[in-house]
Amino acid sequence: MVVNVAIVGVGLVGSEFIRQVIATQSKKIAVVAVANSRSMHISDSPLVDDSWKDQLLTSASPFTLDAFTASLAASKAARPTVVLDCTSNETVAAYYPTWLRAGFHVVTPNKKAFSGDLNLYKEIVQLSSQPGSPLVYHESTVGAGLPVINTLNDLVNTGDKIVKIEGIFSGTLSYIFNNFSTLDKSAKPVKFSEVVSVAKELGYTEPDPRDDLNGMDVARKVIILGRVAGLDLTQETVNVENIVPEELRNLPTSEFMEKLPEFDAHFEKLNQEAIQNGQVLRYVGLVDPVHGKSSVTLARYPASHPFASLKGSDNIIAFTTERFPNPLIIQGAGAGAAVTAFGIYSDILKIAERTRQ
Amino acid sequence: MVVNVAIVGVGLVGSEFIRQVIATQSKKIAVVAVANSRSMHISDSPLVDDSWKDQLLTSASPFTLDAFTASLAASKAARPTVVLDCTSNETVAAYYPTWLRAGFHVVTPNKKAFSGDLNLYKEIVQLSSQPGSPLVYHESTVGAGLPVINTLNDLVNTGDKIVKIEGIFSGTLSYIFNNFSTLDKSAKPVKFSEVVSVAKELGYTEPDPRDDLNGMDVARKVIILGRVAGLDLTQETVNVENIVPEELRNLPTSEFMEKLPEFDAHFEKLNQEAIQNGQVLRYVGLVDPVHGKSSVTLARYPASHPFASLKGSDNIIAFTTERFPNPLIIQGAGAGAAVTAFGIYSDILKIAERTRQ
Repeated sequence: MVVNVAIVGVGLVGSEFIRQVIATQSKKIAVVAVANSRSMHISDSPLVDDSWKDQLLTSASPFTLDAFTASLAASKAARPTVVLDCTSNETVAAYYPTWLRAGFHVVTPNKKAFSGDLNLYKEIVQLSSQPGSPLVYHESTVGAGLPVINTLNDLVNTGDKIVKIEGIFSGTLSYIFNNFSTLDKSAKPVKFSEVVSVAKELGYTEPDPRDDLNGMDVARKVIILGRVAGLDLTQETVNVENIVPEELRNLPTSEFMEKLPEFDAHFEKLNQEAIQNGQVLRYVGLVDPVHGKSSVTLARYPASHPFASLKGSDNIIAFTTERFPNPLIIQGAGAGAAVTAFGIYSDILKIAERTRQ
Repeated sequence: MVVNVAIVGVGLVGSEFIRQVIATQSKKIAVVAVANSRSMHISDSPLVDDSWKDQLLTSASPFTLDAFTASLAASKAARPTVVLDCTSNETVAAYYPTWLRAGFHVVTPNKKAFSGDLNLYKEIVQLSSQPGSPLVYHESTVGAGLPVINTLNDLVNTGDKIVKIEGIFSGTLSYIFNNFSTLDKSAKPVKFSEVVSVAKELGYTEPDPRDDLNGMDVARKVIILGRVAGLDLTQETVNVENIVPEELRNLPTSEFMEKLPEFDAHFEKLNQEAIQNGQVLRYVGLVDPVHGKSSVTLARYPASHPFASLKGSDNIIAFTTERFPNPLIIQGAGAGAAVTAFGIYSDILKIAERTRQ
């Protein structure tokens, strides 16, 4: 049936999702509420154009999670309601149990609830796994719209045995190492600091590139995948190789970029050691339930490996299982508003399908 | 909620599906009926071991589609019932509308209904797309358990524009060309007829390898993908390059294998033309809605293309869309009982989820 959608966070991804729903004239989704950190706009009828932007800007209703939730509960129709969290906020994530208890479904690309406090995660799973309980979908937390979480859920729910999950989960680090470390002899050699600098100018990195290079974002995705696969992973149990040189970790951002070239020789040495063995460097996340190891490392792969021929800023993930001893591999754009909104849109359609009868 | 499953066809795939359901002690699936072309066994309680094999062997109930359906209707519980067609039979496929009208869901790896008569296909879609109507899932018709149909449905249902679907959809032809045509200089050169012969001995080919080499199986998969993408494809509108030399098309099987070596020079010439351009030969299916072309051809791909580095008998599929201008790619084992049964199992779980409320 038709589901109402109430959105918290209308930045790039939230706005793109609304645009896609309106552009495709969805018969399944009615966006009825939008909110940002300042104000909220609860609409009497589904959004059909972008006038919500003005309405939100001029709204007299200040946003709080409690007020937003009370408004939704008051206007609760016969329709199921999905709360869509398009923030990356921890406080919003901690509110999911309240929404689930109120009977609202939750969809989100926000990684916090699934990679943070293990108790919060377990509470969310418990609240959404009883017969008739509201649903939680978070496909876009790993690889944006790529069918990663759904595929892993299918493997787990049908009893396949997960042997290894390995992937390049950061578009930023994919771009950096695809360009820095290549066996293509026609490619012009570049310095590590140059690649990072170009990635920063292209807007591929966080404002401070160390927030990518420290591996914490990849670690969050490893934790999410590990938990979906049944492991109780936390930040403490994932081994993360922070590739920011120690001397640069506590400098201001501008100084970091200034001093990174002093470490070009360090990265070039690693690169040459790989290339002389017919290998390339890739920054990968690993979930290994068999050996109980999960990690984020700078690893080496031979030319024939699918990770070695990755291009641009694509993500790639390989599921090795009992049924797929040669891994099931998924690759493609794993970041960007259009593909993230696609993942959200698919998730909400699944909820609409599951509540249709 | 729990769904009852009634299986027509208990060969390799059907038996493996039952084995997986029993081994995983599924709380969602109860297999309650099994049938082969001779007899049927309707069980009072869900199967919990492989005694069904004896019971089917000694069953006094001859199988007909009508008798099977009448028995299911008579024993119809409060539970939803899924008919699982694990045959590759056209008559069984033509029966889907009868099952849907009787309120039974349909899941199948059988390609016939989705790649044959367009009217049958449209009737099935119509009968399964109304609110509250029974559901049809057929993930395993293309690429076995790889998430191909689900991903394409997600792209289409969220309004993405399909630019191109391209892939290697035959494990047999994947194996043959991955081994015959490679840029890996350490690989020992082999003759085309030798590769076909080895593939036949390994059981990778149909009993008559021409049933693979004529492209008809790949064409069926192209038709299925095209239809899911919204095109009215038929056998007549897909251009198929039959790579069986004309002189060998009407010979008995044994003579075909005997005479194939006479054409090794022909295939070697094609291969060398590719390799001298840094390319390899791959037998690919293509759906191209933009140019209105769908085809099965022996095409050439450069070393850097993901199709070029495919291994073993893996399938690969690349979806190029408006949102994924660099394609979304899925690869892995696309044939075999374990992964086909996995696709079926996932499909039935989705029906169980969608009927839970």
